[in-house]
Amino acid sequence: MSRMNDSFREATRFVLEGDRFLVVSHVDPDGDAIGSTLAVGHLLHLLGKRAVMVNASPVPAKYGKLPGAEEIVKLQELRDASPFDRVIAVDVADVERMGDCRSLITSDALLLNIDHHRTNNRFGTHHLINPDAAATAEILYDWIESMEIQWTKELATCVYTGLLTDTGGFRYSNTTPSVMKRAARLLEFGVDAPWIAEQVLETLTIGQLNLLRRGLSTLRLSEDGRIAWMWLTLQDFSESGAGEGDLDGIVNYARNVIGVEVGILFRQLKSGAVKVSLRSRRRVDVSEVAGFFGGGGHARAAGCTVAGTRDEVERRVLLRVSEALERMDP
Amino acid sequence: MSRMNDSFREATRFVLEGDRFLVVSHVDPDGDAIGSTLAVGHLLHLLGKRAVMVNASPVPAKYGKLPGAEEIVKLQELRDASPFDRVIAVDVADVERMGDCRSLITSDALLLNIDHHRTNNRFGTHHLINPDAAATAEILYDWIESMEIQWTKELATCVYTGLLTDTGGFRYSNTTPSVMKRAARLLEFGVDAPWIAEQVLETLTIGQLNLLRRGLSTLRLSEDGRIAWMWLTLQDFSESGAGEGDLDGIVNYARNVIGVEVGILFRQLKSGAVKVSLRSRRRVDVSEVAGFFGGGGHARAAGCTVAGTRDEVERRVLLRVSEALERMDP
Repeated sequence: MSRMNDSFREATRFVLEGDRFLVVSHVDPDGDAIGSTLAVGHLLHLLGKRAVMVNASPVPAKYGKLPGAEEIVKLQELRDASPFDRVIAVDVADVERMGDCRSLITSDALLLNIDHHRTNNRFGTHHLINPDAAATAEILYDWIESMEIQWTKELATCVYTGLLTDTGGFRYSNTTPSVMKRAARLLEFGVDAPWIAEQVLETLTIGQLNLLRRGLSTLRLSEDGRIAWMWLTLQDFSESGAGEGDLDGIVNYARNVIGVEVGILFRQLKSGAVKVSLRSRRRVDVSEVAGFFGGGGHARAAGCTVAGTRDEVERRVLLRVSEALERMDP
Repeated sequence: MSRMNDSFREATRFVLEGDRFLVVSHVDPDGDAIGSTLAVGHLLHLLGKRAVMVNASPVPAKYGKLPGAEEIVKLQELRDASPFDRVIAVDVADVERMGDCRSLITSDALLLNIDHHRTNNRFGTHHLINPDAAATAEILYDWIESMEIQWTKELATCVYTGLLTDTGGFRYSNTTPSVMKRAARLLEFGVDAPWIAEQVLETLTIGQLNLLRRGLSTLRLSEDGRIAWMWLTLQDFSESGAGEGDLDGIVNYARNVIGVEVGILFRQLKSGAVKVSLRSRRRVDVSEVAGFFGGGGHARAAGCTVAGTRDEVERRVLLRVSEALERMDP
């Protein structure tokens, strides 16, 4: 704890001694990446600093109304900007994950690395890294509290967004008492919880709904009801007007069927191979199944790409999942 | 506050002076009704009392694994039981809402009425009523805290379930700092937040998925993209193997489409009329639209039943919704 306090003091000194900062997060940003980018932007402005927020990917529409989101610039907009020698990276486990934003940074830049990924490789010159935090936003909360600056509604909103999204709407196992206490405090600063939930968790695109409908029409259950799976073909994508981002969460519908332990989404790729997304409820470690096919992930969420015909891939994957289920049984 | 403390003391005395209690909630119970019933059951056991928990409706499957849920008995199981002269009613705004459970209660029974509905008509002899509470479970939390008994994981789990479900998973406008602080404390008593969320918020029936798929296949958007609607026919129900409970939340998919202000689910009834469910995002008061057709509800969620052919009903309802949207515009 006191070591974290020392880190907070050093990070604060790093910010106070600079004037112009680049704030950057990872490609394909999620709610914690965008929320944390914006929170640091607001924080720097409150401290009278200049902040340029950038992301190598476009800001997903669902985060577009968060306060300050319109100020996150695209990489090409900074083509003529002078390079940055002070950088704050949020939610970035590895410098590669910044994508081409690295080109904006001088080789001798000072870089504050704020992150909660266990795999963070401590790139940069200054660090606020805590793998026990539920979200990068949780680290930011504690850092901001240590500064004794006045919370604004905008700052609180962006930090809350990171907590909300990285805990899956306060549903994942990282929903700790400490997360909930911090969320309670943020609400006291005027955060509009239902507005954020609606924006970032409940907004659906037509592409998503089209994919969901097509996926559901293929839903199958194993005989014992413990495995559920769906297929999406190349045609489903082209006819749905859907993009990659629209796949978000569709596999969960298979996993969430009552009685199901493992949900699977099979998805045809242009290469002819099949992308397999696996979700497990409690008992099966699907990263083992994915690993067998050369993929990876976590115990509850994993994926792999398998070559073969539709029937072959389905049969091989279902067999491995059945075996994993049997191993779980007493 | 001190008045509430007096009420807590009286309620505690009521419990300590009795020996055998009936615990009852409303028909068609939701998560707060079941969670609060179970919480009072656990509380009474901790105090060495006998508790019989009953509901006029079956316990929905998604609450069936909550600790103690298997002890909530059906009305007919109590046919030969002697009537109860000490009763605790939770989340019941009006004695009628208990359904036939009233038949189990003596005419001179002492009844403790614990509820957060603004419309509660103060039936019973003792009261813990707070319309500012997000859930009946929030009142129970404060009452239990006032008693200085030791929280068990089971008790905390049931109270947490009420908070979680009545705030729509910490997403509705009743998600106050006080709710989040209490949720944080409950987690400290060992509540398994992801398990509860999975059980009560994320479990889907095959009937639900079938209805959702059929509903999505009819999804239409108004020209300006601000109204989305879906249809479900009698055939959809019969072919889906779906029941009333499976309709839960389907209309939200229309409301949640990006850009949509009002989502509508039209549903054929056996009578030939059409049941219309309306959900609004922020701006339109759909209870006015429902009211025009003789229905009712809240600003964000309302419903009505409209006679007429499919085309007629659709046209009339969409017209009223469009007018309501226009009135909202500056």
